[in-house]
Amino acid sequence: MNIKKRSTKTGLPPGALIHIGEKKIELAKIKILDYDENQFKEVEAKTIEECFPFKEKPTITWINIDGLHQVDIIEKIGKNFDFHPLLLEDILNTEQRPKIEVFENHIYIVLKMLYYNEKINEINTEQISIIFGQNFVISFQEREGDVFNPIRDRIRTSKGRIRKMGADYLAYTLMDSIVDNYFTILEKIGEDIEDVEESMITNPTPKTLHAIHLLKRKMISLRKSVWPLREVVSALERSESSLIHPSTRIYLKDVYDHTIQVIDTVETFRDVLSGMLDVYLSSISNKMNEVMKVLTIIATIFIPLTFIAGVYGMNFEYMPELKWQLGYPAIWFVMIIIGISMMVYFRKKKWI
Amino acid sequence: MNIKKRSTKTGLPPGALIHIGEKKIELAKIKILDYDENQFKEVEAKTIEECFPFKEKPTITWINIDGLHQVDIIEKIGKNFDFHPLLLEDILNTEQRPKIEVFENHIYIVLKMLYYNEKINEINTEQISIIFGQNFVISFQEREGDVFNPIRDRIRTSKGRIRKMGADYLAYTLMDSIVDNYFTILEKIGEDIEDVEESMITNPTPKTLHAIHLLKRKMISLRKSVWPLREVVSALERSESSLIHPSTRIYLKDVYDHTIQVIDTVETFRDVLSGMLDVYLSSISNKMNEVMKVLTIIATIFIPLTFIAGVYGMNFEYMPELKWQLGYPAIWFVMIIIGISMMVYFRKKKWI
Amino acid sequence: MNIKKRSTKTGLPPGALIHIGEKKIELAKIKILDYDENQFKEVEAKTIEECFPFKEKPTITWINIDGLHQVDIIEKIGKNFDFHPLLLEDILNTEQRPKIEVFENHIYIVLKMLYYNEKINEINTEQISIIFGQNFVISFQEREGDVFNPIRDRIRTSKGRIRKMGADYLAYTLMDSIVDNYFTILEKIGEDIEDVEESMITNPTPKTLHAIHLLKRKMISLRKSVWPLREVVSALERSESSLIHPSTRIYLKDVYDHTIQVIDTVETFRDVLSGMLDVYLSSISNKMNEVMKVLTIIATIFIPLTFIAGVYGMNFEYMPELKWQLGYPAIWFVMIIIGISMMVYFRKKKWI
Amino acid sequence: MNIKKRSTKTGLPPGALIHIGEKKIELAKIKILDYDENQFKEVEAKTIEECFPFKEKPTITWINIDGLHQVDIIEKIGKNFDFHPLLLEDILNTEQRPKIEVFENHIYIVLKMLYYNEKINEINTEQISIIFGQNFVISFQEREGDVFNPIRDRIRTSKGRIRKMGADYLAYTLMDSIVDNYFTILEKIGEDIEDVEESMITNPTPKTLHAIHLLKRKMISLRKSVWPLREVVSALERSESSLIHPSTRIYLKDVYDHTIQVIDTVETFRDVLSGMLDVYLSSISNKMNEVMKVLTIIATIFIPLTFIAGVYGMNFEYMPELKWQLGYPAIWFVMIIIGISMMVYFRKKKWI
Amino acid sequence: MNIKKRSTKTGLPPGALIHIGEKKIELAKIKILDYDENQFKEVEAKTIEECFPFKEKPTITWINIDGLHQVDIIEKIGKNFDFHPLLLEDILNTEQRPKIEVFENHIYIVLKMLYYNEKINEINTEQISIIFGQNFVISFQEREGDVFNPIRDRIRTSKGRIRKMGADYLAYTLMDSIVDNYFTILEKIGEDIEDVEESMITNPTPKTLHAIHLLKRKMISLRKSVWPLREVVSALERSESSLIHPSTRIYLKDVYDHTIQVIDTVETFRDVLSGMLDVYLSSISNKMNEVMKVLTIIATIFIPLTFIAGVYGMNFEYMPELKWQLGYPAIWFVMIIIGISMMVYFRKKKWI
Repeated sequence: MNIKKRSTKTGLPPGALIHIGEKKIELAKIKILDYDENQFKEVEAKTIEECFPFKEKPTITWINIDGLHQVDIIEKIGKNFDFHPLLLEDILNTEQRPKIEVFENHIYIVLKMLYYNEKINEINTEQISIIFGQNFVISFQEREGDVFNPIRDRIRTSKGRIRKMGADYLAYTLMDSIVDNYFTILEKIGEDIEDVEESMITNPTPKTLHAIHLLKRKMISLRKSVWPLREVVSALERSESSLIHPSTRIYLKDVYDHTIQVIDTVETFRDVLSGMLDVYLSSISNKMNEVMKVLTIIATIFIPLTFIAGVYGMNFEYMPELKWQLGYPAIWFVMIIIGISMMVYFRKKKWI
Repeated sequence: MNIKKRSTKTGLPPGALIHIGEKKIELAKIKILDYDENQFKEVEAKTIEECFPFKEKPTITWINIDGLHQVDIIEKIGKNFDFHPLLLEDILNTEQRPKIEVFENHIYIVLKMLYYNEKINEINTEQISIIFGQNFVISFQEREGDVFNPIRDRIRTSKGRIRKMGADYLAYTLMDSIVDNYFTILEKIGEDIEDVEESMITNPTPKTLHAIHLLKRKMISLRKSVWPLREVVSALERSESSLIHPSTRIYLKDVYDHTIQVIDTVETFRDVLSGMLDVYLSSISNKMNEVMKVLTIIATIFIPLTFIAGVYGMNFEYMPELKWQLGYPAIWFVMIIIGISMMVYFRKKKWI
Repeated sequence: MNIKKRSTKTGLPPGALIHIGEKKIELAKIKILDYDENQFKEVEAKTIEECFPFKEKPTITWINIDGLHQVDIIEKIGKNFDFHPLLLEDILNTEQRPKIEVFENHIYIVLKMLYYNEKINEINTEQISIIFGQNFVISFQEREGDVFNPIRDRIRTSKGRIRKMGADYLAYTLMDSIVDNYFTILEKIGEDIEDVEESMITNPTPKTLHAIHLLKRKMISLRKSVWPLREVVSALERSESSLIHPSTRIYLKDVYDHTIQVIDTVETFRDVLSGMLDVYLSSISNKMNEVMKVLTIIATIFIPLTFIAGVYGMNFEYMPELKWQLGYPAIWFVMIIIGISMMVYFRKKKWI
Repeated sequence: MNIKKRSTKTGLPPGALIHIGEKKIELAKIKILDYDENQFKEVEAKTIEECFPFKEKPTITWINIDGLHQVDIIEKIGKNFDFHPLLLEDILNTEQRPKIEVFENHIYIVLKMLYYNEKINEINTEQISIIFGQNFVISFQEREGDVFNPIRDRIRTSKGRIRKMGADYLAYTLMDSIVDNYFTILEKIGEDIEDVEESMITNPTPKTLHAIHLLKRKMISLRKSVWPLREVVSALERSESSLIHPSTRIYLKDVYDHTIQVIDTVETFRDVLSGMLDVYLSSISNKMNEVMKVLTIIATIFIPLTFIAGVYGMNFEYMPELKWQLGYPAIWFVMIIIGISMMVYFRKKKWI
Repeated sequence: MNIKKRSTKTGLPPGALIHIGEKKIELAKIKILDYDENQFKEVEAKTIEECFPFKEKPTITWINIDGLHQVDIIEKIGKNFDFHPLLLEDILNTEQRPKIEVFENHIYIVLKMLYYNEKINEINTEQISIIFGQNFVISFQEREGDVFNPIRDRIRTSKGRIRKMGADYLAYTLMDSIVDNYFTILEKIGEDIEDVEESMITNPTPKTLHAIHLLKRKMISLRKSVWPLREVVSALERSESSLIHPSTRIYLKDVYDHTIQVIDTVETFRDVLSGMLDVYLSSISNKMNEVMKVLTIIATIFIPLTFIAGVYGMNFEYMPELKWQLGYPAIWFVMIIIGISMMVYFRKKKWI
């Protein structure tokens, strides 16, 4: 239900730079990685101005910015790199839908990074904006901490082909690691589903219902992040922008395949959860049925017997049976016969 | 269910100007804003004829008309600006679906403005018609009061780029502010959903059911306003009309993205509400189960005991047990044993 | 479920002229309206041959035939106007789906006219076939009485532009009045839905269920008439036939918009009705829950008390309590304590 | 669930001729109809070789083969007419989906003929393969008896245009009579649905449920036969093969319309049946509610009264009320008051 | 829920060769079949290097590798045949979705082979990768044992056309036998569905519910394997790669038809299972209804009678009825009348 704060922008001119979303970090952090096949440099910048000299160099520069609430940083980058005001607005609005915008000199991609918060058993979403041009990649995150560390290591150690390829390949690896991270989330949810499924079969309780409901809610929000991703990756792969080298396309196809697989899994989970709710409802009905049967058996056997006992508890002066020598054992006999025939009837009905 | 009054038109020739809808204002109000980069003029017109001179001037003229029941005003504008009779008919029919019609010299857009009426907890809909040409924008509203005031202020104070751009940009800003307003409505509904969800879990009552039903009804009517919007914005963006400048297209793309986001949220809410109804039904079943269990436990323990008491309340003359010294304590013992074993059985069944 | 009688045709050669459907009128009625901008003539023809001379005249001729069971009339028209045998077969088969067939010299349209039969609260369907060529429109109806009278009046009094336009415009006005008539039906259904909805909330009974079921059935049959209409109107609008003048196309676009609106409303009604059934089921569950609670409360309070009374009704000779002076008030005290604590328990459970 | 026996083919080379399906006839029957506008000949062939001479003649030859288990017949025809091995394999596999294959010299169509088996109230399916070329049509059926007799009569008596048209027209009439036959089946099902619907409203029993379930199963299997048909007919109509004369295309369009109508009806029936299940479930809930009410009313009135009677059945020595002259009428008065006030309460709750 | 282990790859560079999935075999087995129309050779290779000489020969070489955990084998093949690193990565990742990748010199296909594990009543999935070029087919399996033995026999015995055709035909036969194998699985599931259906009608128990749930789960996982298959086969058939000979295309069309049939059956099963769950729920409701009726009948008859008996069990001193000579038979008469009229009432309600 994360659409809060969006309304604060109503009525403002388009391109107005206002941060929409929670402030998740105290001070924005700017990290620069600059490299080509032969050289590598890593800088933790204090001011955004430190980044601008790299723009002129032919080496690939990756500028990563954690924290979006310092609007002036975004604005300065925008001016220096000549980004459209609407693009800057989109970076700041953390309620964006994953999307891609292809400009002449750069491509802008919005993605959602997912974190599994073990403590409160919730999936947190962080918006990642990636802009890449001929020789630069700029990534914007809402807070510190990401899934990009292995990529940083590969750049530092020149592992794989990353140092030999262009900015488009770096952008691809960023996207790839975000999509790969989805599998971790899905595995976690998959385990949760299996847990709930087992408890649903062995002992369905209102808690099980609540757990199914929560998982369904998670799938709805996951879906919202994942479905648009498909179009994003597909548009990037099919785009005719010269910023994407032919050799990168096969890698994009690979990310696309992974995205489809994520979507597939999400849809499968949804199907499974829907089925589970149906089964849960049926289990509840079954349990109620069982409770009803116990009540009916006991009541049906003893209510007539109690009636008979009541009859011979009446105080009429003239009740011949009461005088009979064998009246009492006879009445016991009758009652036992009635009880047994009831039992037989229930057994025939397969209630016991 | 707002399709009333539509039938009054059956059988009339096409283009017949008849106002369909409630009369929501006493007298139509005509406001004119005329501006270019250097000048600005604001006029509250008494008669519609006051607007016509602006048509010849090269400046951008925004004519806003509140109130549709004075058919002659619409007719005069239609004649002066050379609008097709069917277009005028559409303006007057407030039961229109959002749509776009591209003519040679002007483009006609119908949108739905939404208001959240806090008092009766309902969403009100107002139809906004926007016609824009080379140098004019005419907007028709059903009543006074709208979400355009920030735009008027931006024109007055020349904030942003609005005074530098053409009529298409003005039309865009009108559409943008209407779409942005949808987010406010959705946030309100989002809060309502969260409230209902909480009460559904803590204490599901028939009122909860009614609230879910009302929210579902709201989503159905919202959907009706929002889905066609997508086609409208997309058609406008892709239209090849010369009335839309290339620089405006990126802004239209932005409105389109927002529209998709609105649709996404509406669909997500629908999914969530469907899930909630299922959970509600399951909760009711759970509660009934609990009630049944209490009944069954009490009845199953005491009915057999009452039977035993009934037996020894019988008045047979020959009942040996009644004479026994320890008959009474013995019978208490038997009854307590039966009661305890029942309890043990229920605990084994996990009913208590 | 109106697919009866269709089977009588199985095995016949294609183009075999057999009337499928009820005979709804005694004798077929043929009415001719012949007009152009300057002249107008109205003829009630006795034989179909009277119509043929009009064919040669340049004026627009509208031949309306009520009643389809006189197959020879259809056959003669077919021969005279050179219609394909399959077209004639389609006119006679009143179980047609709305459709359009574009021939070289004429266009054939099948539509469904709907009537609301107040007495039996049902929607009746009548098939209308419209064939139009360069200077003629022929309409076939199953029985007398239609929604075309306002059109006839417009032709007679030369109101609107109808006398100035061609046969395609006349065909359009016929379609338009049929589609406009759908709104009347939908308004009626909309009112019914609101009535049922209210009674569903205030007092859900099996009658409510039956009413929802009937409304759903109506929507299913409405849908069958309305969905294909969309394709028909759209195909007509996009057709490249020279029989349709460019100036008529904008009017067809207008009918198309109305059709979409009808479909939208039908779908909305379906959604609303589905939701209502869910709410009805939940209401029933709620009511059952309430009934169960009353039973459980009464039974749970009095069954233990009755047991206690039963105990002291036993006739054991040695029961010390019976001899106590305060035995009777003491037992009342115990029973009242038990009753009150049960009540407290139920109040805690929020059952009372 | 008719997918049995399909597995016997696993692992065989493609084109291996093995009959999959039941053997429904003892000996294959070969019937030949050879005709053109002026002549007509009918032959019941003993061996398949008798058919081959007709191939060279310019007249239209219709070879109909009942029974597919004699694989050698199919093989010989295949060799003589030069059919692809996969085509022959498809003829023998009676678990085919309706489909069309366009070869250079012939077109191969697979359809499903439906029979309503009144005895066991089931729909039987028979696979019909039709191959037609320039001057021949070969039809393969699983058993004797079909819906083609009226066509044979039309050929024999030269009724309609069939003798004047080519092999494509003959193939069309075969398809047309199969599709027309679907309407008979649908009418039968329509009647069944109406019967069940009535009994569902007047007296819902488990039998009603079973009947709805069976009808749903029928619709699922019907759907499987009918949906692919649409593509088949549409592909045939749009095919550019020279084997289909332009004059035949309008007839194919007609079959296509009928197919759409069949699909429409099937989908409508599915909708209606879904709705019926919901209504059935609600009816059951309603009935249970009624049962519960009777139980609750009786129990709630008499349990407290029985308690009171029990109290005064106690044997305490000191119970002052028992000594009162008016104790007995007073207690009756109290009990009647309690009973009446319970009744008033239930009437207020609208339970009685 | 088989998405485990996938996360071990997060953060690795693309093309990193890591086996994802269970290790299902101890040592990888390499089998080579080399043949053309005239010669045939079968080799069980010890090392992968033995395969490479075959690459240069014009004969068709089929290399089959069982076991994927020995990454170096895959790597060496990749280097020797010049496969893209991403392709090798995909072979090793056994969580792939069925897919096709067309390269210049070879085509890569991923499929899922299904096994029915009778013991634990589960469907096991094994990933098969097939790569074919001009004169070679390489197939990778997760473990030993497959459905390819009949193909091997056909090659050995030169049965059918397989020895005369190219590598594309061999790849087709592999795909064909995998798809054909799906029918075996579906037949097994079809039988299971029929079993469950019968028990659902005769005696619905919680076990039935569990069985339906398991079958639904199976369909969901089957669907995941089967749906993408459609695109794979269709892409292969439509691909313009010169590796596929025109004469092979018709066979691919045949596999495509089979795939559609598999999908059709899966969807039909899903429909049937959904319907079964609904019927199950209704059956449970019916049974509960029956239980309730028995309880209500017994309770409603005897509770009032017990009350009457209770009344005459009261110990009031002045109770005139008790003194009457005929009091006792009269009270029996009254009670029998009450009992009978209750029975009549229930019979009228059709409860008994």
